[in-house]
Amino acid sequence: MGLDTNAPAKPHERLAKYLQTDMAAVDVLIRERMASAHAPRIPEVTAHLVDAGGKRVRPMLTLAAAQMCGYQGDHHHKLAATVEFIHTATLLHDDVVDESGQRRGRPTANLLWDNKSSVLVGDYLFARSFQLMTATGSLQVLDILADAAATIAEGEVLQLTAAANLDTTEDIYLKVVRGKTAALFAAATEVGGVIADASTAQVNALRAYGDALGIAFQIADDLLDYGGDTTATGKNLGDDFRERKLTLPVIKAVAKADGDERAFWKRTIEKGEQSDGDLDQALAIIARHGTMAATRDQALGWSKTAKDALDALPDHALKDMLRDLADYVVARIN
Amino acid sequence: MGLDTNAPAKPHERLAKYLQTDMAAVDVLIRERMASAHAPRIPEVTAHLVDAGGKRVRPMLTLAAAQMCGYQGDHHHKLAATVEFIHTATLLHDDVVDESGQRRGRPTANLLWDNKSSVLVGDYLFARSFQLMTATGSLQVLDILADAAATIAEGEVLQLTAAANLDTTEDIYLKVVRGKTAALFAAATEVGGVIADASTAQVNALRAYGDALGIAFQIADDLLDYGGDTTATGKNLGDDFRERKLTLPVIKAVAKADGDERAFWKRTIEKGEQSDGDLDQALAIIARHGTMAATRDQALGWSKTAKDALDALPDHALKDMLRDLADYVVARIN
Repeated sequence: MGLDTNAPAKPHERLAKYLQTDMAAVDVLIRERMASAHAPRIPEVTAHLVDAGGKRVRPMLTLAAAQMCGYQGDHHHKLAATVEFIHTATLLHDDVVDESGQRRGRPTANLLWDNKSSVLVGDYLFARSFQLMTATGSLQVLDILADAAATIAEGEVLQLTAAANLDTTEDIYLKVVRGKTAALFAAATEVGGVIADASTAQVNALRAYGDALGIAFQIADDLLDYGGDTTATGKNLGDDFRERKLTLPVIKAVAKADGDERAFWKRTIEKGEQSDGDLDQALAIIARHGTMAATRDQALGWSKTAKDALDALPDHALKDMLRDLADYVVARIN
Repeated sequence: MGLDTNAPAKPHERLAKYLQTDMAAVDVLIRERMASAHAPRIPEVTAHLVDAGGKRVRPMLTLAAAQMCGYQGDHHHKLAATVEFIHTATLLHDDVVDESGQRRGRPTANLLWDNKSSVLVGDYLFARSFQLMTATGSLQVLDILADAAATIAEGEVLQLTAAANLDTTEDIYLKVVRGKTAALFAAATEVGGVIADASTAQVNALRAYGDALGIAFQIADDLLDYGGDTTATGKNLGDDFRERKLTLPVIKAVAKADGDERAFWKRTIEKGEQSDGDLDQALAIIARHGTMAATRDQALGWSKTAKDALDALPDHALKDMLRDLADYVVARIN
């Protein structure tokens, strides 16, 4: 393509273009499987989310992994749809949990319908995802995705109990991040390799890539919440602070806090007594300890881990895109 | 045992006694698998439910089916625990959906903790249940339980949209009942047969038994809501009326309603404008059309279907208990 200046610039757009035939098949599968003859409310709710169209990074990871490892069948379509269903189900349940009103710039399902629909339609999508993965006939794939589902739920519960808790360590934060983001990324890439019957070394490399990519992405996202272009995340600056979530910039600042600062964090995060100017003060404390830079370094480290993992995989156009994707998720914070 | 007057009288108690060694193993598995090293909130929430101790009918159905078909391994323990986890997960999510404050005579998890914990711990149990069933290595079992999970969620969504809707037909009601109750009963008995490698005829008979048993049970439960010993259900007389749920006694009465009666149902169920005396009037209309008796007949018919299905199975002490169980679930309404 060398001089083709019309080539899409962003790696997920290049992935989407390269994988467009496969993704079209995945799309058909998603629309077929989210239908329900008995309960028309179900496609109403899911279509709302599916049509809002995230970037579909997770299903593309599965397709890319399978193709890179030379897969010739069509089970990877089912697995890509599975991964997207699990993701959509967790979004629906997250919206109940977060009591959020916006998702991808649209009102959330729980505002348009009600919490009940969000819970039950999420359950339906989980069940559908298990039907889809069962249809591949691979017990190894089922193992991986069932484990991922458990890790996701565990991470979300851990996040609940860690909220507003100043004792949250970086170790706990990492477990939360693995649950809310990296577990599904890692499973998405791993099952692509497994279905292609790739070597154990390659499957492990794919898993390591997805895991590190997810962690890098989430740390970058959390960093942007305290400074950065909010159009990139769709969130408002300081959302995590207001919701009293302990993320890396704050966890690192709490660890270095003097008496006054500790009292500040206790009041604003632990007790939730916040007023005008508190976010500015939080940002000032964070700046004083340089924890934004330290957090950025950590995200860059995970991005590098992701890229290094790709070394175990055969040369392929998709491999270059995955490498660029690992750069891209942290480019926003550079 | 003939003259042993100390023998427990109720069929589920006899099942529990007969299956006590197996059930002890299932109990260990449940406690092991509901633990979470990372998120102590999880066992807190689940222990609250598990210790409250329902009758554990569903896991006993799985064990009984496997034993009747001569199973010698230990995968049926995993499947019994799977079935109980799915049941517990749906209870947690139901409590969010119903905004209920009591379950099995104790405050519900969503009152003790919050809706968030109920949603996420339910998700965790679903994921754990899929791990457990995957560990059996049987794709057929995975198919059956994934289908059951989808039917359950679909039925619950259908129930949401059918609530307060006077157009709800008996056909829709039956789909709701299959979703909320019979699908898991049917899967519980069917997987017991499958894991024991029983013949297709026997597996189908086990499924038919569980399906009919679940329907008979649910119809009886719904009937008792309009008259009967409320200590048997743990609910209050008229709960379904107040919650504007369309169940069989009302669906049948609506179908026979004259103009005044239709206006009454429209006001109380569709619009939800209820005041003192309305429940009594609902009961009077129901009595006038004899829909309690018609509903009872239907429950008895399903109970008979359940018993007839058992004919395809070998003679066994457990078969007699299952037959008695089918009588017992409708004995409350006789």
